[in-house]
Amino acid sequence: MKNNTRHWVVLGGGGFVGTNLCRRLTRAGVQVVAFGRSSGFPDALRGCRWVSGDFFNTDDLAAVLENAEYVVHAISTVTPAKSNELPIKDVEENLIGSLRLIHLCIAKGVKRLIVLSSGGTVYGPDVAVPTQEDATNHPLCSYGVVKLAVEKYLAIYRHQGLLDSVVLRVANPYGPYQQPKGQGVIAATVQKILLSQPAEIWGDGTVTRDYIYIDDVVDAIMAAARLDDDSAPRLYNIGSGIGRTINEVIDSLCKIHGPIEVLRQPGRTLDVPVSVLSIHRAQQFLGWTPRTDWQEGLSATYGWFSEHWLNR
Amino acid sequence: MKNNTRHWVVLGGGGFVGTNLCRRLTRAGVQVVAFGRSSGFPDALRGCRWVSGDFFNTDDLAAVLENAEYVVHAISTVTPAKSNELPIKDVEENLIGSLRLIHLCIAKGVKRLIVLSSGGTVYGPDVAVPTQEDATNHPLCSYGVVKLAVEKYLAIYRHQGLLDSVVLRVANPYGPYQQPKGQGVIAATVQKILLSQPAEIWGDGTVTRDYIYIDDVVDAIMAAARLDDDSAPRLYNIGSGIGRTINEVIDSLCKIHGPIEVLRQPGRTLDVPVSVLSIHRAQQFLGWTPRTDWQEGLSATYGWFSEHWLNR
Repeated sequence: MKNNTRHWVVLGGGGFVGTNLCRRLTRAGVQVVAFGRSSGFPDALRGCRWVSGDFFNTDDLAAVLENAEYVVHAISTVTPAKSNELPIKDVEENLIGSLRLIHLCIAKGVKRLIVLSSGGTVYGPDVAVPTQEDATNHPLCSYGVVKLAVEKYLAIYRHQGLLDSVVLRVANPYGPYQQPKGQGVIAATVQKILLSQPAEIWGDGTVTRDYIYIDDVVDAIMAAARLDDDSAPRLYNIGSGIGRTINEVIDSLCKIHGPIEVLRQPGRTLDVPVSVLSIHRAQQFLGWTPRTDWQEGLSATYGWFSEHWLNR
Repeated sequence: MKNNTRHWVVLGGGGFVGTNLCRRLTRAGVQVVAFGRSSGFPDALRGCRWVSGDFFNTDDLAAVLENAEYVVHAISTVTPAKSNELPIKDVEENLIGSLRLIHLCIAKGVKRLIVLSSGGTVYGPDVAVPTQEDATNHPLCSYGVVKLAVEKYLAIYRHQGLLDSVVLRVANPYGPYQQPKGQGVIAATVQKILLSQPAEIWGDGTVTRDYIYIDDVVDAIMAAARLDDDSAPRLYNIGSGIGRTINEVIDSLCKIHGPIEVLRQPGRTLDVPVSVLSIHRAQQFLGWTPRTDWQEGLSATYGWFSEHWLNR
C-alpha cells in the first residue's frame, strides 16, 4: 500500500465485529488495515492488510494510523461480565487507551473516528424500554462506565473542533466469527448445542435483550462513515429495536436444531432484566435500518458455527 | 488517638473545602484526621490530626483509613480549566485514585464515603435551569467526565452492597481558605481587588453560576453523614439554587469595597453559559438548606481575605 493512499483502519480487526467489517470493506473494494493482537480467523481477512500490534503501544498505533481516513475502534480488553473484577485494568487499558487513540487520530488528521459503544451496559436497569439515546445512564458494570467516559471525551473533542467521531451503542450482536466464550449468549448457546452439551441459562430465562445480526451492525458502521450532515447527532443506538428473552432464543434455536437440553444457572447482579434499544434516531439520520430477519440470522449463525467452528 | 476509635477522615483536608470541614468537625468535638499533600493553612487545622501523604500511594492511604467511620473525598489534582490539557493525567490520578480509595474503604470497613463531585461541570450546556440531578450529562471538560465516572463506580459498589456512599455535586463554593488561583472566581476577584489590580472577567460577564457559601457546603457534608434512610437517593446537588452573573458578583463586591476596575478577557470554550442547580432533592432528603445570605457571605469572604491573605 502506498503511503499516500487514504484507507480504513479497523482496530480490533481480528475480533467479531472487526472481522465482519473488514470482509465487507474488502468486498466493496476499500483498502483496509486490520489491526489487533491476533486474529481468530486469519483466513477470513484475506484481502486486508493485517497488522499485529498492541493497542497500548503508542508506536504500534501511530504507525497504523498513518494516512487513515476512517478509523473504527472495536477493541475492548475486558468483557462486561469480567469488568467488575478488574475496574482499574479496565480504566487503564480501555479508557486511557482510547484517550491515546483520540490524541493520535488528531495528530494524524483522521477524518472520522467511529467508536463501538455498548447499548447493553451504558443505560442500566431504570430506563424506559425501548431506550432512547438521551435516557439516564446507570451502568451496573465497569465496562459500561468506561464506554460512557469514552463517549463523553469524544463529545469534548468534537465540541473543540479537534476530531469528528460517531459513537454506535450496539445492542447484542450475533453472527459468524463471534467467540462463544464471553462474547454473546447466542454464540455460546449454538456452540453448546453443536457440542451436544446443555445450553446454559442464567436466571429464569426472562432476561430480555435486543439481538442484532452482525451484517446489520456492519451496515450501521458504513452508514456512520457516510454521514455528511454536520448538525446530525453523533451518538446512535444500533439494535433491532425488538426484545427477546433467552427462553425465546432457545425456542427459536429449537426450530433449527430440534430439542435442546438446558442447564439453569443463578442470575447475575450485573444483568439488567431488560435491554431493548430505540433505533429511531439511527433510522432518521443514518438512513439505516436492520434488514435481517431474526430466524434467518439465527439460521445463518447456526450454519456458520456448524461449518467453521466444529472443524477448526 | 487510640487505634480502635472511630473517626472522620478528610482527604484533601488541607484544601478549601477540607479545611473548613475539619474546623467545623473539630469544633463539634469530632475526632478528625486531615490527610493531604500539604495544608495551605496549617494553623487552621489545630485540633485535627494532620497526616501528610500522597493520594496515589496506597500505603499512605491505607494507613490513614484504619478505623475510619466517615471518609470525605475532597481531592482533585487538576482544575476544570486545566483538565482538558491533561486528560490522561486526570484519569490516572483522579479516576484510578478514586477506584483505589473505594477498594480501600471496602477493605477497611468504612461506614460511608462522601464524595465531592462537581455541579458546575457534570451537566454541560444543554440542560434545563435550575438543573435537577437526573438531567443529561454533557461535560465540556475532562474534570467533569472523571467526576461522572467516579459517581458511576460508586453507584455500582452500592448496588453490589459493598460500600455505602453519598455524592454531593457542589456548585461554585466560595469563602475563607479558598485559593485565588484556579479555584474560584470570587476568591480570584477578591484577591485582585485587595491587591489593587483589575478584576478579570472572561467573556461578556453574563456567564451565570450558582455560588454557595462554604459553611453551607459543610452543612451539606454533615447532613450527608447523618442520612439514615437506606432508600434515599445517594446523589445530591448542593448549591444556592440561584444564578448570578459575574457582572452581578462584581456589582455586589462594589457594595463592599467601592469602585472596582475590570479587565475583560476572551470567553473560554469550557465555560457553560449558565449553571444553576436545583436543590430540592437535598432539601427533601438531607433536611438541608443553604442558610447564608449572599451579601453576608461575600462580606465574610472579603473580610477573611483582607485579614488573612494579604498578611500571610
